[in-house]
Amino acid sequence: MNKFFSLKFAEDNLTFIEQTALPLSEQYITTDNYERIAEAIEKLEIRGAPAIGIAAAFGIALSFKNHNGKDDEYFYNVSNRLRRTRPTAVNLFWALQQMEETYKNLSSNDNIYSRLKEKAIAIHNEDIKKCDLIAKNGISIFERNSRVVTHCNTGKLATGGGGTALNVIKHAFHKGLIEHVFVDETRPLLQGARLTTFELAKESIPFYLITDSTAAFLMQQNKIDVAITGADRIATNGDSANKIGTYNLAVICKYHKIPFYIAAPTTTIDFNAKSGKDIPIEERDKTEINRIKDIKVTKSVYPVYNPSFDIIPNELITGIITEDKLYNFPYNFNV
Amino acid sequence: MNKFFSLKFAEDNLTFIEQTALPLSEQYITTDNYERIAEAIEKLEIRGAPAIGIAAAFGIALSFKNHNGKDDEYFYNVSNRLRRTRPTAVNLFWALQQMEETYKNLSSNDNIYSRLKEKAIAIHNEDIKKCDLIAKNGISIFERNSRVVTHCNTGKLATGGGGTALNVIKHAFHKGLIEHVFVDETRPLLQGARLTTFELAKESIPFYLITDSTAAFLMQQNKIDVAITGADRIATNGDSANKIGTYNLAVICKYHKIPFYIAAPTTTIDFNAKSGKDIPIEERDKTEINRIKDIKVTKSVYPVYNPSFDIIPNELITGIITEDKLYNFPYNFNV
Repeated sequence: MNKFFSLKFAEDNLTFIEQTALPLSEQYITTDNYERIAEAIEKLEIRGAPAIGIAAAFGIALSFKNHNGKDDEYFYNVSNRLRRTRPTAVNLFWALQQMEETYKNLSSNDNIYSRLKEKAIAIHNEDIKKCDLIAKNGISIFERNSRVVTHCNTGKLATGGGGTALNVIKHAFHKGLIEHVFVDETRPLLQGARLTTFELAKESIPFYLITDSTAAFLMQQNKIDVAITGADRIATNGDSANKIGTYNLAVICKYHKIPFYIAAPTTTIDFNAKSGKDIPIEERDKTEINRIKDIKVTKSVYPVYNPSFDIIPNELITGIITEDKLYNFPYNFNV
Repeated sequence: MNKFFSLKFAEDNLTFIEQTALPLSEQYITTDNYERIAEAIEKLEIRGAPAIGIAAAFGIALSFKNHNGKDDEYFYNVSNRLRRTRPTAVNLFWALQQMEETYKNLSSNDNIYSRLKEKAIAIHNEDIKKCDLIAKNGISIFERNSRVVTHCNTGKLATGGGGTALNVIKHAFHKGLIEHVFVDETRPLLQGARLTTFELAKESIPFYLITDSTAAFLMQQNKIDVAITGADRIATNGDSANKIGTYNLAVICKYHKIPFYIAAPTTTIDFNAKSGKDIPIEERDKTEINRIKDIKVTKSVYPVYNPSFDIIPNELITGIITEDKLYNFPYNFNV
């Protein structure tokens, strides 16, 4: 099985690949239950900022599949359930907001499910287009034979389309601009080791898997030319939240004078956040660090600090690539 | 069981704690077989630069326990077997050199085993004293309520005595100078998550376990005051090799203007190495990254780059603490 997808809506069901089982097992789960979709987001079976937003939109729509007519209390119960799944990625709240506006504009005579479904499908299709545009807008950051490092997973698995940062890398590879990719394993949940490797292998793009603390050593030896990651939320001044370890990567890039880029759709911009200080950081359970799968690696009583994201200040970001264009520092997304 | 030791020589046997099983299980292995000791070093059942040297010295001695008289070919076979176990830590070669000099000075009438045993015990006792002196010489780097980060394991488990960097931390804690310790988990082999946590918990020193890429985020929030690690080999200009990820830590310290120290006995200095360029870096098997214990975390066919050490250039090292004194940059260990 060489083809895969992260999310597919067909026959009034959402089918998603179960990401925690990758790459060792490719399992798809099909559901029309919004609660199952909420659980999938919480358990990271569905993950990646844009993918979460799309899945939540389908969750809203599917909640009306067998629920006739408008029902405000029910709508907001479902929406709040989905909203509470993850606190940092803003695309989730954006997608829920889009669904809410659609819902509000419906009259009692409308087929609620059909209209919500159309909107969710539109959000999904829009994301596919944005991924393509991001890939095109990012191509200029590479020179021939670039050796690139990336963190976490920002590909098909993280979006409704081809990806954000990883789609830029794939597009550049197919244009002959990439020599190979260094893939940070991305502790604690190993999205790099499990998901980015999986996607690159599927497209026969050469890569090396490294631990998160190895990139600096490669930079010291002039073996990395450029870094690119995604983002889960971008403030209007360009400060960006992304997977824990991204700030570390941006700092070591700065030290070694290596350009560091972020690629994300404009739905990642939080116009209510003036700076990184306004972005909440999710802390997750200690078991993500003291266990790996079902295996204890250290004693469960030991104290752990496990933030899921960190904040990259705008001055460390060489450029932010969206579906609109490549923005360069300084950033002002208010205008 | 609150007390533990890394290495103990008694009744003509070496007993060592099996470090790959820690902290979930405290198992000791007793042997008088130098081949078993060599295997233990290769498999990291015994690890830590000073501990490796001491274990190898006992290996040399024990090889003559049931081997009468001088036998040069046999001696060099044993010595070469032990030498080939790990390439980076120089304390191993120093200890083997010490044993060789002792051996060369013996006459056929000497009790070879007794003399070699005395020398190995002397090396072990000397290391215990050095650990105490390092702890004392390092105390001045802390101010009251210091929040310190460390990488890998540099405590009792890594040495014959109380440790190097971790002994400095313990000593400072008992003097009331440490608020808490941030322990890098230290991928891939999790020496921080498994061993440093174990040692700190045994002494009731407060700590938080973090992933290797989290320290930068803590520094950004002014939550770390000082960093200290060990070293596996130090060039005469102060460039130091240590566990992969130490260079990353030193760079993020520099960026955040946080002092970064190394603590190591002078046996770690390689007087044949003028700079870091003269230090060989061990690359270890990809299974250290694509598996955790017996669990596959990603596909075994994926390419991996797994250097076990990196090089910290001298200008990133605020000070080097040895049993002699605290040396400050710039370093010149030739004189």
